[in-house]
Amino acid sequence: MPWPQEITLGNSIVEVKPNFTIVVNQEITERIEVATTKFLRRLSGRTGIFLENGFAFKHSEIKNPSLEITYKRVGNLEINEDESYQLNIFPTKITIEATTDIGVIYALETLLQLVDNNETTYFFPEVIIKDFPRFTWRGLMIDVARHFHPVDVIKRNLDAMASVKMNVLHWHLTDDQGFRVESKTHPKLHLLGSDGFFYTQEQIKDVVKYAGDRGIRVVPEIDVPGHATAILTAYPEIGSKDTIYSIERFSGIFDPTLDPTNEKTYAFLADLFEEIAALFPDKYFHIGGDENEGKHWDENNHIQDFKRKHNLKTNHDLQTFMNIRLDTILSKLGKNLMGWEEIMTDEMPTTALIHSWKGVNEGVKPGSSLATAAKNGYNTILSNGYYVDLMQPASEHYIVDPMPKNNTLTSEERKRVLGGEATMWSELATSETLDSRLWPRTAAIAERFWSSEEIKDISSMYNRLETISFRLEELGINHIKNKAVILRNITNNQSIEALEVLTKIYEPLKIYTRNKGGTEYKTYSPFTLFADACTADASDAIVFNNLVSDYIETENSAAKNKILVFLNKWAKNQEQFSKIKVKNPILKSIEPLSKNITRISKDLIKIIETKETSKASQQSIKSQLIELEKPLVDVELAILKSLEKLSSFIFE
Amino acid sequence: MPWPQEITLGNSIVEVKPNFTIVVNQEITERIEVATTKFLRRLSGRTGIFLENGFAFKHSEIKNPSLEITYKRVGNLEINEDESYQLNIFPTKITIEATTDIGVIYALETLLQLVDNNETTYFFPEVIIKDFPRFTWRGLMIDVARHFHPVDVIKRNLDAMASVKMNVLHWHLTDDQGFRVESKTHPKLHLLGSDGFFYTQEQIKDVVKYAGDRGIRVVPEIDVPGHATAILTAYPEIGSKDTIYSIERFSGIFDPTLDPTNEKTYAFLADLFEEIAALFPDKYFHIGGDENEGKHWDENNHIQDFKRKHNLKTNHDLQTFMNIRLDTILSKLGKNLMGWEEIMTDEMPTTALIHSWKGVNEGVKPGSSLATAAKNGYNTILSNGYYVDLMQPASEHYIVDPMPKNNTLTSEERKRVLGGEATMWSELATSETLDSRLWPRTAAIAERFWSSEEIKDISSMYNRLETISFRLEELGINHIKNKAVILRNITNNQSIEALEVLTKIYEPLKIYTRNKGGTEYKTYSPFTLFADACTADASDAIVFNNLVSDYIETENSAAKNKILVFLNKWAKNQEQFSKIKVKNPILKSIEPLSKNITRISKDLIKIIETKETSKASQQSIKSQLIELEKPLVDVELAILKSLEKLSSFIFE
Repeated sequence: MPWPQEITLGNSIVEVKPNFTIVVNQEITERIEVATTKFLRRLSGRTGIFLENGFAFKHSEIKNPSLEITYKRVGNLEINEDESYQLNIFPTKITIEATTDIGVIYALETLLQLVDNNETTYFFPEVIIKDFPRFTWRGLMIDVARHFHPVDVIKRNLDAMASVKMNVLHWHLTDDQGFRVESKTHPKLHLLGSDGFFYTQEQIKDVVKYAGDRGIRVVPEIDVPGHATAILTAYPEIGSKDTIYSIERFSGIFDPTLDPTNEKTYAFLADLFEEIAALFPDKYFHIGGDENEGKHWDENNHIQDFKRKHNLKTNHDLQTFMNIRLDTILSKLGKNLMGWEEIMTDEMPTTALIHSWKGVNEGVKPGSSLATAAKNGYNTILSNGYYVDLMQPASEHYIVDPMPKNNTLTSEERKRVLGGEATMWSELATSETLDSRLWPRTAAIAERFWSSEEIKDISSMYNRLETISFRLEELGINHIKNKAVILRNITNNQSIEALEVLTKIYEPLKIYTRNKGGTEYKTYSPFTLFADACTADASDAIVFNNLVSDYIETENSAAKNKILVFLNKWAKNQEQFSKIKVKNPILKSIEPLSKNITRISKDLIKIIETKETSKASQQSIKSQLIELEKPLVDVELAILKSLEKLSSFIFE
Repeated sequence: MPWPQEITLGNSIVEVKPNFTIVVNQEITERIEVATTKFLRRLSGRTGIFLENGFAFKHSEIKNPSLEITYKRVGNLEINEDESYQLNIFPTKITIEATTDIGVIYALETLLQLVDNNETTYFFPEVIIKDFPRFTWRGLMIDVARHFHPVDVIKRNLDAMASVKMNVLHWHLTDDQGFRVESKTHPKLHLLGSDGFFYTQEQIKDVVKYAGDRGIRVVPEIDVPGHATAILTAYPEIGSKDTIYSIERFSGIFDPTLDPTNEKTYAFLADLFEEIAALFPDKYFHIGGDENEGKHWDENNHIQDFKRKHNLKTNHDLQTFMNIRLDTILSKLGKNLMGWEEIMTDEMPTTALIHSWKGVNEGVKPGSSLATAAKNGYNTILSNGYYVDLMQPASEHYIVDPMPKNNTLTSEERKRVLGGEATMWSELATSETLDSRLWPRTAAIAERFWSSEEIKDISSMYNRLETISFRLEELGINHIKNKAVILRNITNNQSIEALEVLTKIYEPLKIYTRNKGGTEYKTYSPFTLFADACTADASDAIVFNNLVSDYIETENSAAKNKILVFLNKWAKNQEQFSKIKVKNPILKSIEPLSKNITRISKDLIKIIETKETSKASQQSIKSQLIELEKPLVDVELAILKSLEKLSSFIFE
């Protein structure tokens, strides 16, 4: 995963032996060195094989290597770069051929996914793989403003991205809740706008280099003119309201907005953009531009005068006025402006890249700005449908294609759809929970960006996702192991078994329901709660829901028996929960989840086994289902619909 | 833990409420800001309470705070600084009083350890605690040369150190296997001597600041003249042999040694020490100086001539000659030289600090150099007995006291015993396993350094250690959660239950037996093996061993029944192990552990229950015990002695 473009399987295998060696036929670039060394460590770590050679060799140093790597040139970190590779696993030798060293990285990732074993050996299957990406922009946005995520968190996620062949980190560096980059020209930004949580410029450079070694571009975002409370906390003089600002602790859309009529604003941004642009070699620079409601503009007489004077009818016109000036600033710095879809107006030059994000929640057709942008001559990428922080199942993201369905785009216009970006907003994610919000679902999105559009079987995706998910642990992604950490904290180091059972059928509230209006959680609220141990795609729920559909459709007894196994497990949960001797307030708040699922499971077992389908028991189940529908402790029951279907079927 | 010097318990409690507030009566120093903010996050994270205020207030900002902090001055990072505090938890208010802001940090850690709960609330108990350390030097050495440990690993361990009131990080930065600091004066050191794994100078400064914010001093170690292969890989011209050096991949004592007769050596070290010294504000600078066998000196005619010319009879004399010159260099930089005990000679000035490390393994009385050093006028610290990498039980470290027993030291001499350092050599520890080698045992050593010498009850220590261990997870220490990661990798994401049972009775081979002669593991060998999932103080073994002692002594049936519960669990393990459907070579290598323990457990159960103590069954058990004694996959059975005792008792 992502599934390669072309696979030809052979019948043989190639055993991994301690004398496994890699030879590189060209210069061992830093990228190749990092990739081959990491490959050898992961191969050794996974198999327990004591490899004799810990590093790749140059062509001249060794004969008959196990793996021979050939590439033509160093890859550039830019759009439409050649990322293709061919991987041949023959009984005599494994070869990797690629145009660029970036292709080599991807070939090595594919090769690692192919490690297999029997009882006596580890081996690679004989295969020929020809592979290349469908889209050139395969991004992940990480929001480090709402919760700060230190360098090591970003680095491990860059490793994870590379492992699923993603190639753009969009770094959302500023927002109302924080300004996260050291600024030498305007140091108050990080000193007053970050609570001490920011990246130094050297750290930024380190991350950019780390990403580049993995074939990943890094696009910075400085969000203006809205989402700018942190900036205004440091420099209130460029705000649209004469007031004292302070770092926002809640989530949502706030009023503080830069003043687009103030020349100081442009002087400030020109300095800042120049400084930030120097840290990021990428061609693109994201200026945000989203969700500016202009309330402070409406309240400001000077700004109203300015609008009239310049014949700017709406606040959107005023923002466009500003964006054009920002585009000029960025052009001088050799950068292409990129922004959320609000920046697209008649005046915006087509060198800009339009980031399509709005959908049902914003009252528009999902991703509709994407086709418009392509038609209007802009390069564009899609994020609507890829908001992984909203805790929707992987399947829902997987079916979203960056290329609009049934579109009327010309082939020229289609080329302007560069790809997409998963977005990880972190209002509800700390560094302890970020990984479990990102992974493994982002891997399904990565497949959508890389693989052929024909690859869309949901159940195949889920099967492969389970393996990918487990393998991400090898890269330090903590999405699996941190669940137990949260549960141990909740039980105060008593048994977590009963809670684990619950996390496999309960999921965090979805879309924007967990933090209604952004006022339930502050940035410093606890994210060590039961909902934080839960994830989208609760594992038992996926299996149970399939079983129930299967059973209702076919009435086969195998499915029925498996359903009963699950019901029996849940029926016993409250007994298990009761064994947690010393209770605390958190446990007390969770206990109803356990009691409720135990009760309905017991009742359903009895009804299924005795076929006792009286009105009374039907009524009891019905009222229990109504009770189960009410969200508790910020989670919802992921098997609720199946329980409803199963009940209807039983009482039919 | 560490146990405070003076505790007076009251009868009341103080409830933790959402409006919990902290007021600081003096300036909120960065140290106080970091400590109070982290305190609030941890309190909230642990209890799930949505605290209304995420930061401490200044005195003027609020009345009637929940917690009032008073201190006299900013603490200095130097020996014999005042680290005491008084913590009063009264129903009306909690107060912290300390001389320095370092004392405040420790008071907050103590307060966090006191959080308790019932079913409805979280609370602090009413108590008065007066506390201060017994020793001023409470250190941990981390070796980042054998395996590199990135900044985030060091930082989370600094947090863990602060939580058990340790105050010195001794950073072993160089060795045969790597030179881990960026050098601007001699860049080949990090470019050729580190495989790319080194700290930039900015990272060093960041860590030093991070440590200082937690009251922790950082002492760098540049190990010379031996343990210097990495240095010589970069600068062979200052070596004692005319050869090409390359980074060492094995462990042990190697021959490459700096040339003490070459003026270039001193010019090089003067530059390097000046550069390194500037990064570390601490008064002490560790030059290593250990384990130089002088083989290359003996082989070098020029060096032999030099010795004769300068009337240096032994290689030790020659090393002393060198050390005196290094002391001069360091004196000019305002630093006190510190070194492993080999540096102590008649000529070494008493400004040097002697680091006592040798013991039984080196053929001397454990830590004997410590008393000698104190008598000879040196400040000194103890590490012998605190080598946590050797996988000995916490109890063995805990009984070692930095102050020599039955010593004849004068009170002046006793004052020179500053404390001790746990040492974490990392030949067998990667960043994935380091924490499980360090913790929780290092917390027991921390208690030895802080608490009264009267606090030495082993079973109380183990009880409290279990709580501390679990709480370290809150700081990101991965010693618990990474076990499951290793086991999942071994089972290829199948059930890990059977393996977990085994990790609770098997321990990694101790002392130097896992890596005999340093030749079994290279730096890039896999450390994802079963032995890496195992730890010292295997949890079931501790309980079982106590039960067997108890039973044999008293023949009480409660102990007998609990023993049978354990035996039954192990008797079923092979059945559980067999459920792992798809086996691989690692699993096959582990399977005998499971089979053996299952077989002997079944046999013992039968014998205990049927009292069938025939010669044949006695012989069978005996031969099984002999089989169990043989180490397999680098682990040993931690209940072996108890099984032997139990068998003898049964067949008595």
